[in-house]
Amino acid sequence: MEPAPVYLDNNATTRCDPKVVEAMIPFFSEQFGNASSMHAFGAEVGGALAKARKQLQALLGAEFDHEIIYTSGGTEADNMAIMSALETQGDRDEVITSAVEHPAVLSLVAHLEKTGRAKVHIIPVDSKGRLDMEAYRKALGPKTAIASIMWANNETGTIFPVEQLAELAHQAGALFHTDAVQAVGKIPINLADSEIDMLSLSGHKLHGPKGIGALYARKGTRLRPLIRGGHQERGRRAGTENAPAIIGLGKAAELAMEHMADEQTRVAGLRDRLEKGLLQQIGNSFVTGDADNRLPNTANVAFEYIEGEAILLLMNREGIAASSGSACTSGSLEPSHVLRAMNVPYTAAHGAIRFSFSRENGDADVDRVLEVMPAIIGKLREMSPFWRERDNQAFNPTYA
Amino acid sequence: MEPAPVYLDNNATTRCDPKVVEAMIPFFSEQFGNASSMHAFGAEVGGALAKARKQLQALLGAEFDHEIIYTSGGTEADNMAIMSALETQGDRDEVITSAVEHPAVLSLVAHLEKTGRAKVHIIPVDSKGRLDMEAYRKALGPKTAIASIMWANNETGTIFPVEQLAELAHQAGALFHTDAVQAVGKIPINLADSEIDMLSLSGHKLHGPKGIGALYARKGTRLRPLIRGGHQERGRRAGTENAPAIIGLGKAAELAMEHMADEQTRVAGLRDRLEKGLLQQIGNSFVTGDADNRLPNTANVAFEYIEGEAILLLMNREGIAASSGSACTSGSLEPSHVLRAMNVPYTAAHGAIRFSFSRENGDADVDRVLEVMPAIIGKLREMSPFWRERDNQAFNPTYA
Ligand SMILES: Cc1ncc(COP(=O)(O)O)c(C=O)c1O
Ligand SMILES: Cc1ncc(COP(=O)(O)O)c(C=O)c1O
Repeated sequence: MEPAPVYLDNNATTRCDPKVVEAMIPFFSEQFGNASSMHAFGAEVGGALAKARKQLQALLGAEFDHEIIYTSGGTEADNMAIMSALETQGDRDEVITSAVEHPAVLSLVAHLEKTGRAKVHIIPVDSKGRLDMEAYRKALGPKTAIASIMWANNETGTIFPVEQLAELAHQAGALFHTDAVQAVGKIPINLADSEIDMLSLSGHKLHGPKGIGALYARKGTRLRPLIRGGHQERGRRAGTENAPAIIGLGKAAELAMEHMADEQTRVAGLRDRLEKGLLQQIGNSFVTGDADNRLPNTANVAFEYIEGEAILLLMNREGIAASSGSACTSGSLEPSHVLRAMNVPYTAAHGAIRFSFSRENGDADVDRVLEVMPAIIGKLREMSPFWRERDNQAFNPTYA
Repeated sequence: MEPAPVYLDNNATTRCDPKVVEAMIPFFSEQFGNASSMHAFGAEVGGALAKARKQLQALLGAEFDHEIIYTSGGTEADNMAIMSALETQGDRDEVITSAVEHPAVLSLVAHLEKTGRAKVHIIPVDSKGRLDMEAYRKALGPKTAIASIMWANNETGTIFPVEQLAELAHQAGALFHTDAVQAVGKIPINLADSEIDMLSLSGHKLHGPKGIGALYARKGTRLRPLIRGGHQERGRRAGTENAPAIIGLGKAAELAMEHMADEQTRVAGLRDRLEKGLLQQIGNSFVTGDADNRLPNTANVAFEYIEGEAILLLMNREGIAASSGSACTSGSLEPSHVLRAMNVPYTAAHGAIRFSFSRENGDADVDRVLEVMPAIIGKLREMSPFWRERDNQAFNPTYA
């Protein structure tokens, strides 16, 4: 019998929870009408949308449900936050962000810099992926429109002190945004008690549907729409509401609340057991990121002297799904910008594998990975010139 | 027994075809992985996405499938087309559009004009809603970045000569975009044989899912992303692909092709019988738009001296769904900007009702509307001061 496939790529995307699909189904072909209309075809949509908004509000600990603006995903929310801040902050034209953000932030700010629409400060991180607080403080100033720092990193799981970063931004009169796409649903969030002005999230990272996300914008935050047209979302985001997806995201938020404790303990336990087992069995490997301060579900393990893509290929043959670097940039042979920013040596960054768990994983998944990984790594190292020459100081290849 | 509810609001949104939902379902909780990954969880996604792209390509008669860029809907596609044209057309900074466009175009260009980012020419229409060709020709010039004229109007169904408008735009060196959200799936479209550079569509208007749309951009058209981040859609639109919705839209496109002939004949027949019956039974009413050149599914009937919202309310009580003005602007008491642009008198524009059919409608729907409308209109007119004073020249109320 074939062993069951193992899915450890939940930071890329999660399985849509069947309960989420069930909640969405009636809104495709039965209650498909406009929520605003009074007729039989849309009668229940308004109520379901209101409930979904409350469910997401609860997960975020937001004070008001209208602080939520639905978008098509995390990327759109990130883009909207930064573009809006630049447009509403008068003559403040500087953006502060970190070197380890997702491309949804980094490639936008690179474009803004290139086209002269913003001056961008990229704050470095240390070898554990922690933000250089001194550099952050220094970058903040009277020209800062917005500081955008992720809540948790998608590759290493490292958590940033966003509440504190928001307070510092406010002291400089700047807005603070956080890309919380990887944090929402995994760790407790309480926006009402923070100074965070804006937050992005994405449905499919928390067992909700793809194609839906949200920007939280604290009441009173001045906003400019990124997408203009009809008056949906109180005039802040135009386009016919994606009712099934909004309702699905609400259900996903509710389920995330229910499973939060499990995530903190059982899922973190699986992750820790995997890391320990891998490091025990496989030499020249180490965990990247900040072990003391990271998401409960993410393990990023660097296996030195081999290629992540090759590791993934052999894992796939065993029915195990994981990632090397971020899914969005795979296809390129450059090692991950996150690991490079952390100064992980090239010989290790190239062989980094991200194992990302969810509440759907169990002990059998960990057992299975521990069973196959030593042979996979061993086999690849046998074929690797870098492995053979690893102690030869004269052999000094340059990657990328 | 209650009569079956009647849905005649298909230009607002359509019922997601159960076959579309069926096609989507496996991609929520089974094949939920990244299309790019090789593992069991995403193995079939790539093939299904490729097929969906081909299905949409076929409906559009596009030469290449990569001319399709998926977006979150029609509004985003409209915004992207116009913003991209302004950014890529060098020192051309003028936009031409019509007075009867959807807010997805009109409110964007109003913003661009207000913020000094574009000079906007709004081309008027005549009393049948037809574009003033003379004004269009005159507006085109060496500063025109883009002309954006809808393929078919959402309120009246009036069809614009977009192929010809595209040729004229090209003679002036400008790009041509058409908002075809109401045309796609209802009338044959053959982009390969036209000079149209860009076209917007929206899934939920053709029995596909909400939250998905596309921008067609002819090969070679220079483009700038509206949403930046990962490399999805060949770097033209970032954000995790909404695989279930893309696959659903593909199925919807295939079904639309199959039903196209039915739409042209049977559905148009239902619409015509409704109009005829209403006008025969109800005085002081008339059809707006261009009877010779319009969508097969749309009837816009103005009932003079009463309020559209009141008519809808009474229709709703009878289980009949339709629209007054455009769904996106309802809630406001201003009569529709489309009917105002056509110079429909205020006393009629206020009482205009849009009946929009789909392949799911049948004879019973028409019978039912014809059965209840005379009494509804009669009752409201009895209560209307405008109706009582309609022949009194001295009574000259001002609306809005
Ligand atoms: C940290 C982070 N931000 C933003 C995104 C983008 O989210 P989406 O692809 O749903 O737009 C992702 C996921 O790819 C992410 O991990
Ligand atoms: C002509 C036209 N353009 C654009 C749109 C916007 O489409 P969506 O709401 O799907 O973004 C609509 C529908 O509301 C429309 O009728």
